[in-house]
Amino acid sequence: MSPMLGSATITEEWRHLLLERAGGITTVTLNRPDKLNALTFGAYADLRDLLAELALDGQTRVLVLGGAGRGFCSGGDVDEIIGATLAMGACDLLDFTRMTGQVVRALRECPFPVIAAVHGVAAGAGAVLALASDFRVVERSARFAFLFTKVGLSGADMGAAYLLPRVVGLGHATRLLMLGDPVDADQAERLGLVSEPAEDGRADAVAAALAQRLAEGPALAYRQTKALLTAELDMPLGASVEMDAATQALLMTSGDYAEFHAAFTGKRPPKWEGR
Amino acid sequence: MSPMLGSATITEEWRHLLLERAGGITTVTLNRPDKLNALTFGAYADLRDLLAELALDGQTRVLVLGGAGRGFCSGGDVDEIIGATLAMGACDLLDFTRMTGQVVRALRECPFPVIAAVHGVAAGAGAVLALASDFRVVERSARFAFLFTKVGLSGADMGAAYLLPRVVGLGHATRLLMLGDPVDADQAERLGLVSEPAEDGRADAVAAALAQRLAEGPALAYRQTKALLTAELDMPLGASVEMDAATQALLMTSGDYAEFHAAFTGKRPPKWEGR
Amino acid sequence: MSPMLGSATITEEWRHLLLERAGGITTVTLNRPDKLNALTFGAYADLRDLLAELALDGQTRVLVLGGAGRGFCSGGDVDEIIGATLAMGACDLLDFTRMTGQVVRALRECPFPVIAAVHGVAAGAGAVLALASDFRVVERSARFAFLFTKVGLSGADMGAAYLLPRVVGLGHATRLLMLGDPVDADQAERLGLVSEPAEDGRADAVAAALAQRLAEGPALAYRQTKALLTAELDMPLGASVEMDAATQALLMTSGDYAEFHAAFTGKRPPKWEGR
Repeated sequence: MSPMLGSATITEEWRHLLLERAGGITTVTLNRPDKLNALTFGAYADLRDLLAELALDGQTRVLVLGGAGRGFCSGGDVDEIIGATLAMGACDLLDFTRMTGQVVRALRECPFPVIAAVHGVAAGAGAVLALASDFRVVERSARFAFLFTKVGLSGADMGAAYLLPRVVGLGHATRLLMLGDPVDADQAERLGLVSEPAEDGRADAVAAALAQRLAEGPALAYRQTKALLTAELDMPLGASVEMDAATQALLMTSGDYAEFHAAFTGKRPPKWEGR
Repeated sequence: MSPMLGSATITEEWRHLLLERAGGITTVTLNRPDKLNALTFGAYADLRDLLAELALDGQTRVLVLGGAGRGFCSGGDVDEIIGATLAMGACDLLDFTRMTGQVVRALRECPFPVIAAVHGVAAGAGAVLALASDFRVVERSARFAFLFTKVGLSGADMGAAYLLPRVVGLGHATRLLMLGDPVDADQAERLGLVSEPAEDGRADAVAAALAQRLAEGPALAYRQTKALLTAELDMPLGASVEMDAATQALLMTSGDYAEFHAAFTGKRPPKWEGR
Repeated sequence: MSPMLGSATITEEWRHLLLERAGGITTVTLNRPDKLNALTFGAYADLRDLLAELALDGQTRVLVLGGAGRGFCSGGDVDEIIGATLAMGACDLLDFTRMTGQVVRALRECPFPVIAAVHGVAAGAGAVLALASDFRVVERSARFAFLFTKVGLSGADMGAAYLLPRVVGLGHATRLLMLGDPVDADQAERLGLVSEPAEDGRADAVAAALAQRLAEGPALAYRQTKALLTAELDMPLGASVEMDAATQALLMTSGDYAEFHAAFTGKRPPKWEGR
């Protein structure tokens, strides 16, 4: 366990998510298959809290996010969320929308790569969860839909107006967020939304293989790569180069860097320790 | 009319542009077909002032920008602008170049989506007008040319060095702005410059159909999507997520959000009010 | 010579690079062909110092960066750099990593376009040198590899986590920097990493032709295009438009702008002076 843990207790049971942990790989499954994994207040809260806990306990090298049943995630539940928010005042509404944003920030800022395993539909908040992940494994018949305007809301939801132009460019992002139309896997791949395609039925397996590769690799190197990709989107060139220099100097004192050299010199594969 | 109007009068006649208004759709046509709609000082000034007025009067839900005759816009007029600027001093030059930039800012910051209907040539300032629009409907035989260096000027004109890398990436943007070579519609589509392709002769019709769809949709949702796309290009992740949360909480109190839920529950299409 | 030169002397001999200068074109060749042009401390230092000197002396209109032998550059030398850094303390490590970043900043900030002529492998720091160039001429059989994590280091090296998302988008950049896998020329072209493709064996010739075109063109216009592309990646829209306005007003007083108008009016090609 990490020495950075204090008095806070670890959650014993996640009631709104399925959680599996094995060999540094944490697999989170959205699990309301009869509702296409529509998100509830509880699911958002669990994602927010789980990501915060995983960031602290130091046991997760890679996280896989997937959905049970016929699709990845159809977004906020029409009854449990849209219906409920219609009865809320300003303060409660903001508590809710800020919670959804905290999930996206946690996905971008957690100290391990996140792989979204996408099959079927990734709509609304589900599309943004995939967008905020580091890798998107996408089945051939999957589709994304940033459909917020179709429910009368802003397409800029949960950071989508920040993230999507930085992934697919401002032109495509405007079209996708303004119109909210579905994006099939072919189009998604052309736009740069797909990290790795998968045959139908294979997203979880392909994501698991990628997760295995990442879990066996140099975890500190991956973690800093992610942290600096996230940070440098918001930084100017000069400061980014400076941050890279300091980070790289630090990693040059790490065990994995020495291990690479020893392995290379010894003509054997490196055994990464992740530190 | 909007209660945000004060004493300023509305312009009765736009002498340097054609203007049509119908059902929330404002169509602006560059109208010097014998000169491929080359821009004059008056056309820039009218675009600047018209966009400011449309932003205030609350009657425009979507703006379509097109060109009469054989092309969209060939850029600044060689005689009326390039010739004239050669005789200007620093102060007048800056007044002119700032005016051109104000048009681009107005296109990015006006509270409704802008559709450029591009046929034939979109060159120089004409290419930037299209680039600053939210949607580009582009005919198969159309071409863009960011040809500023070919007249001895910086490729960074009217915000092009800001916008183009955010639409097509830094590599392509460098090539296009530095060399100024024409980009045909096929290449433009591969780069992400095309929102919707159109057969030759069909740009205006396709743009009008898109405008109709936008005009009938949830205008406040579209407007905030555009405003946040524009703003969040310049904002860090954390602040963007915060801005999305506040905006979405506000829109959850809007009539269109309630209307979506009522329509969904009643199994009927929503009737958007745009507020 | 530029009046902006003071007492500092010009380096007579670059021991770690090949340098040719002719007609405003400076060609720099990484020249350790038996080591796939693996970079040494001396090569980094020479690149840093050479770029600073070229920026001052005003004789370079375009720089071509290539590699001798079978490839462009295989990155930092495993023995001379990786081995040596394993024995260094924090201060020396930071001196080294900051030097590498200074090379990238110099490539982005020097007052002339840089063309990377890429054949064979462009790996690690070699891939970043190409990425930081304005143009990448890439042979069909060439490949990039941002392989930093494969040696246990952060993929964010020398500004790569800043630059690569701005060239290929965040999704592809995450995959390339996190996994470090090779990117062949076909994939590089789809991602936007290729400015101009070249048949095998032709990168130097294609780069030379592009350099010739740039050297004969309006150098001040190119220089400001590059400077503003670099600056405006880090600037908000309003300030960018303002910077374009001031720059363009200045260039409207330049000889090349007047020359364009005279040539156009006289129906002859312009003779660019580059000022």
